[in-house]
Amino acid sequence: MKETIEIPVMERVAKIQDQIANENRAVLKENNILCINIMGSPGGGKTTLIENTIMELQGKKTIAVIEGDLATTIDAERIKALGVEVLQINTGGMCHLDAQLIKNALKKMNLDNIDILFIENVGNLVCPSAHDLGEDYRVILASVPEGPHKPKKYPVIYKDADVVVITKADLLEHFPDFSVDVLLGHAKEIRPDIKTFVVSLKGEKKIDEWINWLVTAK
Amino acid sequence: MKETIEIPVMERVAKIQDQIANENRAVLKENNILCINIMGSPGGGKTTLIENTIMELQGKKTIAVIEGDLATTIDAERIKALGVEVLQINTGGMCHLDAQLIKNALKKMNLDNIDILFIENVGNLVCPSAHDLGEDYRVILASVPEGPHKPKKYPVIYKDADVVVITKADLLEHFPDFSVDVLLGHAKEIRPDIKTFVVSLKGEKKIDEWINWLVTAK
Repeated sequence: MKETIEIPVMERVAKIQDQIANENRAVLKENNILCINIMGSPGGGKTTLIENTIMELQGKKTIAVIEGDLATTIDAERIKALGVEVLQINTGGMCHLDAQLIKNALKKMNLDNIDILFIENVGNLVCPSAHDLGEDYRVILASVPEGPHKPKKYPVIYKDADVVVITKADLLEHFPDFSVDVLLGHAKEIRPDIKTFVVSLKGEKKIDEWINWLVTAK
Repeated sequence: MKETIEIPVMERVAKIQDQIANENRAVLKENNILCINIMGSPGGGKTTLIENTIMELQGKKTIAVIEGDLATTIDAERIKALGVEVLQINTGGMCHLDAQLIKNALKKMNLDNIDILFIENVGNLVCPSAHDLGEDYRVILASVPEGPHKPKKYPVIYKDADVVVITKADLLEHFPDFSVDVLLGHAKEIRPDIKTFVVSLKGEKKIDEWINWLVTAK
């Protein structure tokens, strides 16, 4: 009879995590911090987007970053090099961040002076979607080399996303089969009110619309 | 006290899945089928590698494919268009294939005449690694746009991989920060005997070494 107990236990864990997410949300609100959960495939450009956003907002907004990875501090070191407060979470084998990990991280940070907190989730289009961290917005990145069908293939993460950012747009000329309109159309079928941005960070930079949204998002 | 029972239940499920994986392995061996589990990030080139392998081996080897995706039959339709037997598994919200899903699929396939069975796993660098499907070889794809640090960031999946294939090598000129040697070096730190291939399927094709290994792998 032992096996029948598994589902209630997991449900109880999920409920506790949702409570903790609400606590995180309250702490962030109290400190007037805009919190953005950045999700996407491995190598989809999450760290690069955060780096460039930090550079664009230098002197205008104080940014801090929580970095989620299975292993290494590679991404945290990139962010730290920009002189920004960064906290690395290594999940070991876990395929996503959860509210408790964020709660622990927030306790270690000086929250007094942060305008925007980015949480870079583990590179994964499945697992992070099920986990509310207490963020204000969920942003999903879709890089051009991944192709235009990701929203259709990974609908759950798009259903819960507030924003989709197409990254590596400088590569569009090398991917004639990729269509921005097709990807955004698929995303809007799943989440009709999703905000959309197209970003390029190599060659001719294209990031202004994303930055403009970010500074007015709260 | 209910909560203490979770881990044994999960361990028991894992044990059952390992048994089923061994059953799958026996069925595949009986039918003299080489079975390759293809893993990688979303949009890393898994379907494209399988498509091109089918074309290269046309008339030489009979290939069949099991396609794993959360949703849609997009990849299965691409394979079907090549006149090859293909079976789609939609996992719903699950982030990997498991041995039971493969057992069910094998029952529906005509195994008499297959030389090579490709299993395309769900696009994910974390979850598939924990699940033996009964395959002969685990192949992990690392596409150039993802950058050279994936083995360090996702060590678990590399530890259990037999082969790493660098894909989209035609893009190397657009990624001056990417180094084939660095990525393969990282992979070999984790798994010293890992086989390595560099494949390009656009422009000047580079796939011969992968094909040569495949036809002699069993």
